[in-house]
Amino acid sequence: MNWGKPNPRIAAHEVDAMFIDRWSPRSFLDKELTDEQIASLFEAARWSPSCFNDQPWHFRYARSDTDRVLFSEPLTEKNRLWAMRAPLLIYLLARLHFAGSSKPNRHNSFDAGAAWMSLALQARRLGLYAHAMAGFDVKKAHEVLNVPEDEYTVMAAIAVGYRGRASLLTEELAAMESPNCRKTYSEVVGEGVVVPKG
Amino acid sequence: MNWGKPNPRIAAHEVDAMFIDRWSPRSFLDKELTDEQIASLFEAARWSPSCFNDQPWHFRYARSDTDRVLFSEPLTEKNRLWAMRAPLLIYLLARLHFAGSSKPNRHNSFDAGAAWMSLALQARRLGLYAHAMAGFDVKKAHEVLNVPEDEYTVMAAIAVGYRGRASLLTEELAAMESPNCRKTYSEVVGEGVVVPKG
Repeated sequence: MNWGKPNPRIAAHEVDAMFIDRWSPRSFLDKELTDEQIASLFEAARWSPSCFNDQPWHFRYARSDTDRVLFSEPLTEKNRLWAMRAPLLIYLLARLHFAGSSKPNRHNSFDAGAAWMSLALQARRLGLYAHAMAGFDVKKAHEVLNVPEDEYTVMAAIAVGYRGRASLLTEELAAMESPNCRKTYSEVVGEGVVVPKG
Repeated sequence: MNWGKPNPRIAAHEVDAMFIDRWSPRSFLDKELTDEQIASLFEAARWSPSCFNDQPWHFRYARSDTDRVLFSEPLTEKNRLWAMRAPLLIYLLARLHFAGSSKPNRHNSFDAGAAWMSLALQARRLGLYAHAMAGFDVKKAHEVLNVPEDEYTVMAAIAVGYRGRASLLTEELAAMESPNCRKTYSEVVGEGVVVPKG
């Protein structure tokens, strides 16, 4: 069976393997998730830290065919092609203001990102993979979800499921179906105050 | 010894214990971290997912007394009080535009949040705790770090170290020294398209 290219990831420093083993495949099996699996994903996200413990994240998910078709509408054509096969599609929303307040929350997106990371790691604990997408029409996502743009912003679409063979994908996507690399350690980390150019 | 109040956290659904066990104490031991521990924290963050794999995060850290004093300057008085004891202070920066481009990256803060979550979980793997702070003067942080505001935004200050006794803190902070709760599952997760009010 063709599972895609070999894994090119090599850690530069000792670290728990879960961080290296997590990646974002596009080929998912058309196999349903259980209620327990789905609840477990969001449970992980729910315990993430946030500014003033405001928990500015909100998750909407689609598992029925009807909901998944609806949720796939805002996706780019390219993402829709593979994400439609995943048994679970999620939109992750970030609340713009602190709960019950008109004060903008500078960390709404940052905190939503932390919650997304927790979900992605818990997916691996369940033998699943999660793939977050920026490729969707934000305005359309607001319409589909019926979410006012002055209350929330839709930050990410997320597909979750069991990994499938690369050969289930189009030739173009199959060629990309492997874990990607990272910048070197010293490009993103430094001691003291001099910050290099991005 | 007084380690603070008992842990009030109860998971609503089966989930890996690491998500429940992670929290943000304020009392840190004045005990140095090794080079390996520090590298391990950033290694975890480095493998986080990001939009177009742009990796918009950058970490600056302080471990020497001189650097920690400098890094503590932008913190609020209240945070400086406890964070100064931690052996490692970090600023997490998010690059505003895609690398080598003038195109704004809508997900810079979201992706930085994912990297922060990885760091926090790896800290626990090492027997350490990480506490992210929003309470700092952003403008001052840019000055101290010498980071132009049109290239990066300083998203979080992070203290990392071994947990200390609550009695090392002021009375006010000692009273707060315990894991906090979360909204209920149904407040932050739902199936289909109707989103409740924040």
